[in-house]
Amino acid sequence: MDEENKEISETFLELAKNELKIESIDKEVEQYKIRKMESVYNERDTLIEKIPSFWKIVLSQHLDFANYIRASDFKYIDAIDKITVKYASDIEKIGSFSITFHFNEIKDDFPAQIISKNFKLMKNVPDQKKSGQDNEEENTEETKFDEIELEEKLTSEISDVQWPKEYNSINPDLIKDKKSPEGKKSYRQGMKSFFGWFRWTGLKPGKEFPHGDSLATLLSEDLYPYCVKYYTEAQRDFADEDSYSDDTSEEGIDLSEEEQDNEEPAKKKIHTS
Amino acid sequence: MDEENKEISETFLELAKNELKIESIDKEVEQYKIRKMESVYNERDTLIEKIPSFWKIVLSQHLDFANYIRASDFKYIDAIDKITVKYASDIEKIGSFSITFHFNEIKDDFPAQIISKNFKLMKNVPDQKKSGQDNEEENTEETKFDEIELEEKLTSEISDVQWPKEYNSINPDLIKDKKSPEGKKSYRQGMKSFFGWFRWTGLKPGKEFPHGDSLATLLSEDLYPYCVKYYTEAQRDFADEDSYSDDTSEEGIDLSEEEQDNEEPAKKKIHTS
Repeated sequence: MDEENKEISETFLELAKNELKIESIDKEVEQYKIRKMESVYNERDTLIEKIPSFWKIVLSQHLDFANYIRASDFKYIDAIDKITVKYASDIEKIGSFSITFHFNEIKDDFPAQIISKNFKLMKNVPDQKKSGQDNEEENTEETKFDEIELEEKLTSEISDVQWPKEYNSINPDLIKDKKSPEGKKSYRQGMKSFFGWFRWTGLKPGKEFPHGDSLATLLSEDLYPYCVKYYTEAQRDFADEDSYSDDTSEEGIDLSEEEQDNEEPAKKKIHTS
Repeated sequence: MDEENKEISETFLELAKNELKIESIDKEVEQYKIRKMESVYNERDTLIEKIPSFWKIVLSQHLDFANYIRASDFKYIDAIDKITVKYASDIEKIGSFSITFHFNEIKDDFPAQIISKNFKLMKNVPDQKKSGQDNEEENTEETKFDEIELEEKLTSEISDVQWPKEYNSINPDLIKDKKSPEGKKSYRQGMKSFFGWFRWTGLKPGKEFPHGDSLATLLSEDLYPYCVKYYTEAQRDFADEDSYSDDTSEEGIDLSEEEQDNEEPAKKKIHTS
């Protein structure tokens, strides 16, 4: 039995090494992709600029994006003229990226501005509490796995965005009394607005824009890469709505087909990613 | 205005070409990944064989997998000794793959067997009904997008698997009267069992194993690539359960931490894929 245990123990060690190889290949693949895509994405950025309201249409089409945005923020989302994402391609920086927003002016309320927000993937050192709970009787194989399975998390720095005048009452920089119940409430409202997201760092969970990392990932892994698909889908939906208004009086609406249409985005993502 | 329309029309054409470039790079990246991973996956397959009950633990750990499997099928899922996935790496075959299951014998019920099931990604020609509905007034840009946006779908061939004796009453090959209500019911039950999945082709929707393509994708894109992570998580959960049974009397269970643990798999997938 001891011999058998020793062999299994060695197998786990080999398996841990194998996992490291897989992680390393994952990064090489990501680097290969980023480098191949760069010029094509640049070309696309230039083409998209010529299409009126491209990003307004894409961002209002995307169901999941709307979950991160308060209704009152959409006025400023609609002012986004251009979005670009740059992905770091150095092997040790894979997973880091930068999102740049070009905002149009809204007269007497909001200045035109170009704001970048940088995101970094950091190896997460297990926190004190967790490592304190470690069971010393744990068998060695598991410990080996744990060592290589440090979780990674996204972090960012505060980006200096100019807030709309309309948001003066919830702009964290303008709230003088942050300790009164009223002040706290306004502060929280501001931090939960789209402009609050530009202050998200990932270092103060519970005190920042909620799920700021997920919104960043949504932009870098879904909205930007598949923006043309979302734009096309939106155009098709508009066309469908037009034809419905002509035809429904005679035939009624075929609900089953509408359902099929709704399923499309998820399926496409699987095949193209 | 006419000049402007012409320019936008040209932009859409350029954008469609750009999308084709992106699709082509996606395939190159996939090919690069498959070729890089092949030897590491082979090495891993060999290591995993030395770990007792590896696949039983992985398959019972995975929450989504259980959604595809009827409770009574788990006896045969537990008999799976080995799973391997081979991914086609020729550019024109990217997206096609083959899953091989090694089943252990269950005495007097189920023979040991090795069964492969092949999946092919096929360009889906839009069906008659849909193209018949095309609106002739549609502007040309959309038509161009439609041309390059043929949906792809997964298809397969029937794999010849030997069913357990216990399933004789629902084994489609043994049901003589498939037209009686009783016969139909048994037939449907069989087709919805895990063994019914081996008959899934993707060509007769509604008459085959439900969501057979999703189960295939779950195996090829999630369970096989991340099997070691799922195994490690299962081992950790077992360890947690042990320590709970020792400690809970004093401290109670920290639910908030348990929730964090449950979130882990999804997060990991994002970072490693």
